[in-house]
Amino acid sequence: MHRNLVRTLLVALLAVSCLRQPEPRTGVEPQEWAIAIHGGAGGLSRETPDEKQQAYLAALDAALGEGAEALDDGASALDVVEAVIRLLEDDPLFNAGRGAVYNHVGDHELDASIMDGETLACGAVAGVRTVRHPITLARHVMERTRHVLLAGPGAEEFAGEVGVERVEPSFFDTPERYEAWQRALERPAAALAADSKYGTVGVVALDRQGRLAAGTSTGGLTDKKFGRVGDSPIVGAGTYANGTVAVSGTGIGEEYIRHGIARSLAALMDYRGWDVERATKHLIEEVLRPGDGGLIALAADGTISMEYNTSAMFRGAADAGGRFEVAIWDD
Amino acid sequence: MHRNLVRTLLVALLAVSCLRQPEPRTGVEPQEWAIAIHGGAGGLSRETPDEKQQAYLAALDAALGEGAEALDDGASALDVVEAVIRLLEDDPLFNAGRGAVYNHVGDHELDASIMDGETLACGAVAGVRTVRHPITLARHVMERTRHVLLAGPGAEEFAGEVGVERVEPSFFDTPERYEAWQRALERPAAALAADSKYGTVGVVALDRQGRLAAGTSTGGLTDKKFGRVGDSPIVGAGTYANGTVAVSGTGIGEEYIRHGIARSLAALMDYRGWDVERATKHLIEEVLRPGDGGLIALAADGTISMEYNTSAMFRGAADAGGRFEVAIWDD
Repeated sequence: MHRNLVRTLLVALLAVSCLRQPEPRTGVEPQEWAIAIHGGAGGLSRETPDEKQQAYLAALDAALGEGAEALDDGASALDVVEAVIRLLEDDPLFNAGRGAVYNHVGDHELDASIMDGETLACGAVAGVRTVRHPITLARHVMERTRHVLLAGPGAEEFAGEVGVERVEPSFFDTPERYEAWQRALERPAAALAADSKYGTVGVVALDRQGRLAAGTSTGGLTDKKFGRVGDSPIVGAGTYANGTVAVSGTGIGEEYIRHGIARSLAALMDYRGWDVERATKHLIEEVLRPGDGGLIALAADGTISMEYNTSAMFRGAADAGGRFEVAIWDD
Repeated sequence: MHRNLVRTLLVALLAVSCLRQPEPRTGVEPQEWAIAIHGGAGGLSRETPDEKQQAYLAALDAALGEGAEALDDGASALDVVEAVIRLLEDDPLFNAGRGAVYNHVGDHELDASIMDGETLACGAVAGVRTVRHPITLARHVMERTRHVLLAGPGAEEFAGEVGVERVEPSFFDTPERYEAWQRALERPAAALAADSKYGTVGVVALDRQGRLAAGTSTGGLTDKKFGRVGDSPIVGAGTYANGTVAVSGTGIGEEYIRHGIARSLAALMDYRGWDVERATKHLIEEVLRPGDGGLIALAADGTISMEYNTSAMFRGAADAGGRFEVAIWDD
């Protein structure tokens, strides 16, 4: 009798633990709103002059503050993703919009994408050269066309039709990126090691209505050739959002495309039942290679996960519970 | 005692059924090799003249036969995917290579991608205009660059550097596609309903070494504007291959991007443990909408799944066990 009881209990325990698959999300209290941002992941040295560190932290702080305030005021996740990325695009510290890297022939080719987790509506542009805010053009693709991705001269033509702000290509010039390009021309291998390839920006947001959205914007790789398109304008690679999670990635874009990183994160949660932290860590530590980059992800319950396998990631996180932090390295 | 026994048995049964998650693959015997191809999914009427039906079936038969013979002779999955897609690209019946649809201004813009399931190496091109075989250029991107996707004029420049066969843009002209474009110009809504948008071609193959590969090639949408890029050159949307499954999709590309269809199929198998048939049916019947398109998928055990939610899909399947069939509609 005693043995039977033990067996019954053991088997029942096993059954119950099985029934609990998919695993419950971590015990974070639902937040009213939440936001995470990144300004790229890379090999930034801790020896970086304090002045430069402070400039990055201040830029992240300002962008995060703007997003947090808007969400607190009830703005939609989609509006906040676009607005905060516009701020980062205008900041020459980041490789997106103004401050974008130079391609092989000295031009700037900008990529961006945005996705609404509630509807799966999404839009993206690749290789635009005269659009001040590629993220806004991506949103127009999402809202005004039946397409997802417009590339090159066609995307420029569309920009003309919808009337987004245009600038001379020289608007995107900055001395720092110019020098990085010159160094890359002299020693192509140096371009790979340059910090400058990692300045992509991304935002994920959860609004008071429980809607998730994600967006990413970049100038791509210094000295890139041949109309190379990375992961930032590829929905499922550098950006994804659905009802479960919003994701933005930064790093070696080709690895993010190959593994479908942003889509895989949502799939690990939806199909395998993992929480956002476990899914993010798995992709950064076990799927991507050391040095490939980073990810920010925000689950529908407000949990934020920010992971990277580089030495640093410019990042920030805030929520309705009072969290507000920006960082570059691990502490 | 009796009641306890029943309870023990019930709970044990539940535990065992839980433990069996992920579900075992269906009991198909491993095949030595296998291949599936598609030539697009769409609303082709059964009233289509018999002569035209026979032309399509003969083209599929020839392409499938070439692929089957090569695999039987020990060719690699990757080589077979490329070779069979080249055949279909040269056939004006299909909307890829020669026979590609016209864009809004009367040009042809071709997209293709290829992926090696063994290594996750992949390559893609978007918006090329003078490359006879976009699939071959995609393979060069995969093998000769550290990039995945090259677009527009840059991809053309790369074509010049690697020396693939170039043709005048008029090479891609065909009277049938020209008429479809003219009809679309007169009635833009008609372009959406036109069969011509569904002629994308794709191949998935499993070779004698157990390696999977997938590829897709297309001329995109009739009357497309603004450098629109669909799912065919997007790894994870229209094409994917890993160690589990090789996938190629055809249909409304934007829906395939939004849901990350090809990557999702692999994720349903890898993360949820579903077999290829269940995963393919789920995506076609429950994720995509009626009329969106079709999918061909080939699992590592040789199981082929071909599903569509349109009225027809040009398709073929063959394997080392003697299967060899081509079809347009359900029988």
